[in-house]
Amino acid sequence: MIKIAILGYGTIGSGVVEVLHTNKESIAKRAGDEIEVKYILDLRDFPGDPMEEKVVHDYDIIADDPEVQVVVEAMGGVEPAYTFVKRALLAGKSVTTSNKALVAKHGAELIAIAREQSINFLFEASVGGGIPIIRPLNSSLTADEIEEITGILNGTTNYMLSKMSFEGLEFEDVLKDAQSRGYAEADPTADIEGYDACRKIAILTSLVCGQQVDFEEIYTEGITKITATDIRYAKAMGRVIKLLATSKKTSEGYCAMVVPFLLSGEHPLYNVNDVFNAIFVHGNVLGDAMFYGSGAGKLPTASAVVADIVDIAKHLHKNILISWSSRKMDLVEYKKAKSRFFVRTQEPKDAVEKQFGQVEWVEAEGITGENGFLTEIMTEEEYEEKALGLKNILQRIRVV
Amino acid sequence: MIKIAILGYGTIGSGVVEVLHTNKESIAKRAGDEIEVKYILDLRDFPGDPMEEKVVHDYDIIADDPEVQVVVEAMGGVEPAYTFVKRALLAGKSVTTSNKALVAKHGAELIAIAREQSINFLFEASVGGGIPIIRPLNSSLTADEIEEITGILNGTTNYMLSKMSFEGLEFEDVLKDAQSRGYAEADPTADIEGYDACRKIAILTSLVCGQQVDFEEIYTEGITKITATDIRYAKAMGRVIKLLATSKKTSEGYCAMVVPFLLSGEHPLYNVNDVFNAIFVHGNVLGDAMFYGSGAGKLPTASAVVADIVDIAKHLHKNILISWSSRKMDLVEYKKAKSRFFVRTQEPKDAVEKQFGQVEWVEAEGITGENGFLTEIMTEEEYEEKALGLKNILQRIRVV
Repeated sequence: MIKIAILGYGTIGSGVVEVLHTNKESIAKRAGDEIEVKYILDLRDFPGDPMEEKVVHDYDIIADDPEVQVVVEAMGGVEPAYTFVKRALLAGKSVTTSNKALVAKHGAELIAIAREQSINFLFEASVGGGIPIIRPLNSSLTADEIEEITGILNGTTNYMLSKMSFEGLEFEDVLKDAQSRGYAEADPTADIEGYDACRKIAILTSLVCGQQVDFEEIYTEGITKITATDIRYAKAMGRVIKLLATSKKTSEGYCAMVVPFLLSGEHPLYNVNDVFNAIFVHGNVLGDAMFYGSGAGKLPTASAVVADIVDIAKHLHKNILISWSSRKMDLVEYKKAKSRFFVRTQEPKDAVEKQFGQVEWVEAEGITGENGFLTEIMTEEEYEEKALGLKNILQRIRVV
Repeated sequence: MIKIAILGYGTIGSGVVEVLHTNKESIAKRAGDEIEVKYILDLRDFPGDPMEEKVVHDYDIIADDPEVQVVVEAMGGVEPAYTFVKRALLAGKSVTTSNKALVAKHGAELIAIAREQSINFLFEASVGGGIPIIRPLNSSLTADEIEEITGILNGTTNYMLSKMSFEGLEFEDVLKDAQSRGYAEADPTADIEGYDACRKIAILTSLVCGQQVDFEEIYTEGITKITATDIRYAKAMGRVIKLLATSKKTSEGYCAMVVPFLLSGEHPLYNVNDVFNAIFVHGNVLGDAMFYGSGAGKLPTASAVVADIVDIAKHLHKNILISWSSRKMDLVEYKKAKSRFFVRTQEPKDAVEKQFGQVEWVEAEGITGENGFLTEIMTEEEYEEKALGLKNILQRIRVV
């Protein structure tokens, strides 16, 4: 019998309880032992809940109980999650968390503590919800140099962009719809400004390069400036707009950013719609691979957390090596990144060509009074320089 | 230093040597030790090859050398691979193989020997080439009951069907094209009759249910009867034809088959084209997930083999638990499987409706002298019974 404690009885914490109950037998078989929830830490009480008697309000009870071998952190946010998780690890308890903010900020340190203690700090659910990506990166793609990892890592914004695309709606209208469905929070900033995806690509890049990537250094744009007009142009080009979190290895190092991109129909992420997430990986010997699934949601996320619990149970006193040291990885300045740009401007065509040379003009049905065009491939820096000479730029979206 | 021997210096064996050389440093870091090829077993000599001096012709040299800790089986076919692998395992050497015929036939036994010896028998490359699927099934999707696993598991036939679809060609013409590109062998039977995919879905189903699934019991149809006319009907319906290897958990047990299906645009496997493979998984808590990548080819397959070598190096004297016992899993008779059917017949519409009741008629441009229709959902048995009363059935393809 392996006894666990769950920190936070919200969506994910209660999902973990549900998954452990629903698949009790097969989980015990795979873990090699039964898993029992001994405590649930929450500020609230849950009268009438089947787990009512397991709820405690004082973390000391969990931290000081030597019977608890695994702590499931499902509170979210950096504090007090960080303090609780660190204390658990130092007390010899393995931890799994779904908390991308915690992992992005303190992952390297918590991994190191787990290694010293010959226990484990796992975080499969922190990126891509139920999609297995952390463990495959760590234990399957080990023969490769990963040259690119690009994901649709935020279900809320992908739902919104899909709906804008399918129904021709404006940003504000789909935001209201997403909020009414519970896909977006009352304060949607973290999703729509790309902050959530930024932490996730920081985690993936750290795993790929084996060093600490600070999310604060990743250039991040959200989707708040995407309009129904942009979507119409995208359709005219046979493309879709997706918020991609991307990290590429260049000769000078890793270059990461979170920005909306125009994707062609051949791109493996083109068809990833609604709340689904997907992660595209290019390895130097593997070639292209993609992992697709439910990026959020109670049960898919809990599925990933419970898979971590099973892995911990199989490695109770053996650390699973995760290459992510605290040595900092300096990212290549995003201004050196190259792409084509789609631009909308109210300037006449000759003014555009004066700045950008030959461009590819894009016409979208029913849109007048402006000119849309695609540039050649250039760096962000080159684009900004050329764009300086052009007044009235209405939009610019990178193209991949 | 971990010394390995490679059995077979063909496409995959030489790919393994290349990957180990190309990514030598990062592989050593992840494995925790350097990997050195000590022997290569092949009937041929390779004068001038950098590995020339490692080539041996006698397996005894490898089996009897206690320095060899890992054997890479890359010969293909059941014998002598089975005899060699078994002997290696009994001598305490871990094994990785890319050989689906060997794994489908003797997987359960070889896994059991490895467990007894506290070593490992791994086979990531045997299904889906470079796509991580065996390890994710075994160590990531452990919180779930897998209710469906459906894959495009054969790159040759997927290339051929894609080309038929894109270019409107007939089967014989794309087969010649695939042979000229080296995608299909001179004797293409194993690919085009579905035998290759059949062994792979047998392996996946065994892993999902934890018992032995005999590939001989899986109903298998190839793609040899698919015509350009079928493709035109598919296009008229907004569908594509794919050879799917599928296994579903029903209330009576697992039902598996390998047959061409008509897929709608919403199906996650709809866009998997050319030589790519993909595996769709539905878990009872995870929901839908998909794994996509290069299903074959020298380097992608070698990438998966080397990932196994790294995993073996990390678990030199510890068995990684794989749930696949020798206890036989009786499959549900395929005649109980349900789907809609697309049918082409030269019978008049009233004769069709007499047998099948209300159907959905399908018209395809330029096709006359026959009637195409979609049935309701029914079992294979029900379909066969109704079809008995209809002469001149030109084609029937299942719809998903």
